[in-house]
Amino acid sequence: MRRRIERVRVGAGDEVATSRREDRLAVEEPLEIRVGGEQFAVTMRTPGDDFDLVAGFLLSEGVLGIGAPAAMRFCAGEPGEENTYNVIDATLGPDAAADALPDTRRVLATSACGLCGIPSLDAVTKSSRFDVADDPLRIELGVLLSLPDRLRAEQRLFDDTGGVHAAGLFTADGELLCLREDVGRHNAVDKVVGWAVREGRLPLSGTVLQVSGRASFELVQKARLAGIPMLSAVSAPSTAAVEQADAAGLTLAGFSRGTGINLYTRADRVRR
Amino acid sequence: MRRRIERVRVGAGDEVATSRREDRLAVEEPLEIRVGGEQFAVTMRTPGDDFDLVAGFLLSEGVLGIGAPAAMRFCAGEPGEENTYNVIDATLGPDAAADALPDTRRVLATSACGLCGIPSLDAVTKSSRFDVADDPLRIELGVLLSLPDRLRAEQRLFDDTGGVHAAGLFTADGELLCLREDVGRHNAVDKVVGWAVREGRLPLSGTVLQVSGRASFELVQKARLAGIPMLSAVSAPSTAAVEQADAAGLTLAGFSRGTGINLYTRADRVRR
Repeated sequence: MRRRIERVRVGAGDEVATSRREDRLAVEEPLEIRVGGEQFAVTMRTPGDDFDLVAGFLLSEGVLGIGAPAAMRFCAGEPGEENTYNVIDATLGPDAAADALPDTRRVLATSACGLCGIPSLDAVTKSSRFDVADDPLRIELGVLLSLPDRLRAEQRLFDDTGGVHAAGLFTADGELLCLREDVGRHNAVDKVVGWAVREGRLPLSGTVLQVSGRASFELVQKARLAGIPMLSAVSAPSTAAVEQADAAGLTLAGFSRGTGINLYTRADRVRR
Repeated sequence: MRRRIERVRVGAGDEVATSRREDRLAVEEPLEIRVGGEQFAVTMRTPGDDFDLVAGFLLSEGVLGIGAPAAMRFCAGEPGEENTYNVIDATLGPDAAADALPDTRRVLATSACGLCGIPSLDAVTKSSRFDVADDPLRIELGVLLSLPDRLRAEQRLFDDTGGVHAAGLFTADGELLCLREDVGRHNAVDKVVGWAVREGRLPLSGTVLQVSGRASFELVQKARLAGIPMLSAVSAPSTAAVEQADAAGLTLAGFSRGTGINLYTRADRVRR
């Protein structure tokens, strides 16, 4: 979206130049996700690939069965009003974990707690149908180091706005399977995973998920729940991200910067 | 936290050097926030300034009254187990908006919706006790441009780990009032705002909030709810951030990079 702004620049001689110009901004709008007609969540996101976002989000929240939602549709707005395309209703299949609704997070967070509660990483770590520890993925160092540039080259929104994150799913040969962008880092990953859910590709064994930002606990969790054995980030991981990756046997890489990379867990998957 | 990792570097002649070394990581752990003994939210955060985080979070969620929580305490763990300091119970004062509990987001998100729902920016924009449109803040361009460097210079965690965000509250003269860091951008801002809540400083008129990352809808909302008339980001804002700032009369600046800055709304507050 274009918008008129003031751009102020200070020159070498301290002179100030103000220009009024049009600037492109990354679009951010609310999306209401409903499950079976009931509100499940509202998230701010960049419109586009919204069905992918919903499928990936529901997988991460633990409410999908082994496949995609049975159906998804944009709700129409009020009669006579324009459809905002900001409400999606998902119908789950018969295999879905319907008892996890409506508040999965609460259920999981308290499942390991006593009277006064001890939230620990274990308590907020969701169980996954897929075990990535034995995934046979091996990737050449050169291929791995090339992924951030590949991601950047394929990003359409970032060039314009400078304000969006990207996530890309690659094969061990460096083939790009899916790239998604969003103002939110988590949304970008949800969109990639949701694409795979809808394509019937889970578990995503043999793949690498490359992200444009940092590697948090939640991003490792999203990768793990989709059966992705390797997460590579351009920036730093957190302690919780490393601990979860370590426990799961997922390869976690950070500070991937073209000529170098840090391998935090399962470095044996990277061939030198 | 220190952790043993493999660092892989590719030299000019394509030789690969692998070193095993200790690396410092930004700590990320779950925090369970309870209100009156009832679980309200679980968030991943960097431990430290946790009471500030809770106060700021509750303000942003619209459940505080005009002041700080009447009391906050870390719950002890199970008898015989170590206290993880990952559970805080907040007791609200008699002026708190207790009817907003337990699911503020849902209440707000549906308040403007019809049968099928039309989530719009209006519907997810929370009303604030403070009007920033008439705030008399004026700031010299040079002071404003210096804030990202000031923030960076004062960050303790980032130097070590490269993985944390910072938010800093400054006066118009560039005096730093409060700086907080966290693996989460929103948490860093919640900690700054929560500090002000607990110090009885709301509304934060005449101040500038400088953040290390992008300016999203939610960050503008957090500033607005604390009565902060200006938000300056090192990176890009989104459309929703700009629209909310515009409607509220809040000055929103982005791409603040030492010698230049973009002013998206209320540019009149910046003296050149």
